[in-house]
Amino acid sequence: MGTDLGAAELVDGALQALSRDEITVTLVGDEQEISDALGSRSSDSRIEVVHATQVITMDDSPMDALRKKKDSSMILAFDLLKKGQVDAAVSAGNSGAIMASAIRYLGRLKGIQRPAIVNVFPTQKKPVVMADVGANVDCRAKHLYQFGVMAAAFAKIMFGLDAPRVGLLSNGAEEGKGNALVKKTHALLADSTLNFIGNIEGCDTFQGNVDVIVCDGFVGNVCLKLSEGLAESLLSMLREEISQTFKAKIGYFLARRAFAKFKKRVDYAETGGAPLLGLNETAIICHGRSNATAIKNAIFVADELAANRVNDLILEMLAEGEI
Amino acid sequence: MGTDLGAAELVDGALQALSRDEITVTLVGDEQEISDALGSRSSDSRIEVVHATQVITMDDSPMDALRKKKDSSMILAFDLLKKGQVDAAVSAGNSGAIMASAIRYLGRLKGIQRPAIVNVFPTQKKPVVMADVGANVDCRAKHLYQFGVMAAAFAKIMFGLDAPRVGLLSNGAEEGKGNALVKKTHALLADSTLNFIGNIEGCDTFQGNVDVIVCDGFVGNVCLKLSEGLAESLLSMLREEISQTFKAKIGYFLARRAFAKFKKRVDYAETGGAPLLGLNETAIICHGRSNATAIKNAIFVADELAANRVNDLILEMLAEGEI
Repeated sequence: MGTDLGAAELVDGALQALSRDEITVTLVGDEQEISDALGSRSSDSRIEVVHATQVITMDDSPMDALRKKKDSSMILAFDLLKKGQVDAAVSAGNSGAIMASAIRYLGRLKGIQRPAIVNVFPTQKKPVVMADVGANVDCRAKHLYQFGVMAAAFAKIMFGLDAPRVGLLSNGAEEGKGNALVKKTHALLADSTLNFIGNIEGCDTFQGNVDVIVCDGFVGNVCLKLSEGLAESLLSMLREEISQTFKAKIGYFLARRAFAKFKKRVDYAETGGAPLLGLNETAIICHGRSNATAIKNAIFVADELAANRVNDLILEMLAEGEI
Repeated sequence: MGTDLGAAELVDGALQALSRDEITVTLVGDEQEISDALGSRSSDSRIEVVHATQVITMDDSPMDALRKKKDSSMILAFDLLKKGQVDAAVSAGNSGAIMASAIRYLGRLKGIQRPAIVNVFPTQKKPVVMADVGANVDCRAKHLYQFGVMAAAFAKIMFGLDAPRVGLLSNGAEEGKGNALVKKTHALLADSTLNFIGNIEGCDTFQGNVDVIVCDGFVGNVCLKLSEGLAESLLSMLREEISQTFKAKIGYFLARRAFAKFKKRVDYAETGGAPLLGLNETAIICHGRSNATAIKNAIFVADELAANRVNDLILEMLAEGEI
């Protein structure tokens, strides 16, 4: 509930996720709305519905949501997760409220000081994982080190990498470049058991020469939104130029499949939401305007992370780092 | 000297800038190399050459460059500027060395605590100016306020805006969003005489709903390089898709002028370098791989800023803010 495109779109995504045999879904929200959206699929034995009387909106403050909306779809979903009735939770609701209620209901993973949001960027070669992209705006070096551990665990599971290359986002590639936080973090990462490749710059994000990018949640959030905005803006500018002459329009028509494939490659919906790692369970935060494809892919990511015990891997990697 | 494409490319850009009648250029560097590049234009009365025996390379540390390369093209150029023999300096050399030597030789403008690099981003509607994009990685709120003043002065002169809309880059549009630095800066900007429109997000950068974006130099540098990298990467991915089928290639051929116009719109070379504002004179930092077009445009920007007395405007705006 409470997302930009409405409950039916999310239900549709959940139904699409049933294409993987091992998945069953519990839809939490307004019973009537969900059952309308389900239609003839209501009787599917792999779908369960849990009714919630409240909705956390995009305008609710996270603290108000926690206090006053205990019967909201979001909080009920985390409650089911805490009780072990589901293995992971996916939400496209108010992301501040997701963070606050996930931390409150699920609790931090042992040893993790700050849970972080992990985002996957498509690049020319292979996807790159960035953490944190918005959970923590003021950070210390140890937090950033832990973001690196969590994002590396994610990359190991999702992309099958043995030793993901971890880069520290800075304003220059040379050691010694960076603000005070980055310089301290560089020292921690260099001493860690992670496969640390040093500082990387903003332009390296999309080159495919790094697997994991570590930054604080303020910088990461700006990067995430800047990338989305720039990609959209570039495509509109290109469309604008193409629409100016008849010849160019014909050209576009002939190349339209290439454009469609390109759009699919860079579409946020294909990456499947942003996991909030460092909790005792698996939770995925989706874009407020997630469509069915985005929800389906987010459920797939949740499935992979839970099935491959991402939290055990994080604990193991943290312990290795302690030696 | 010391740029990626060599002196001849820069000389070419300088010659192109002579298309504006009011411009004369002084080329500072290796006399022989410059005269080879000038060829028959050597005798042009609007071109002067000043010989420099040293070159600051991209690998030189700024402090070493300052100490050991006093006869380098860069330092001689700033020296000419200080002596009033030229009205502005443009360099595509080592940007750390440009900053260090510009501050040392030209000095800070009265009242400015930290000079800042201003960058122009092309957007769908009109260009947007961001400061700081790399001169200052650890900042206080007052520095960010002054970046806003300098970038607004730039926007007034370059884009003829009466009251440029100034936004503060944050991780959310609402007041109260941001890291500690952004929250403090928000209060200063809200109380200032600037046309402050509040927090903006990364995605607003390219929407054309803001004229000036204020951020610290670490975040700005990441944004700048991320944007360059993403634009390049998106274009390569699109080219890759288009090259896969014959039909798409024909389509591209028909639409090629639209692509060329699009590329021109987003090309960094069109924006004309990044001024280092807050000094007693006008200095422009260009990309190390600047081509002739980029140099020509940077000289045009230098011309506009010097002719319109950007520093007097900054001093005036600072004084207004003090009331």
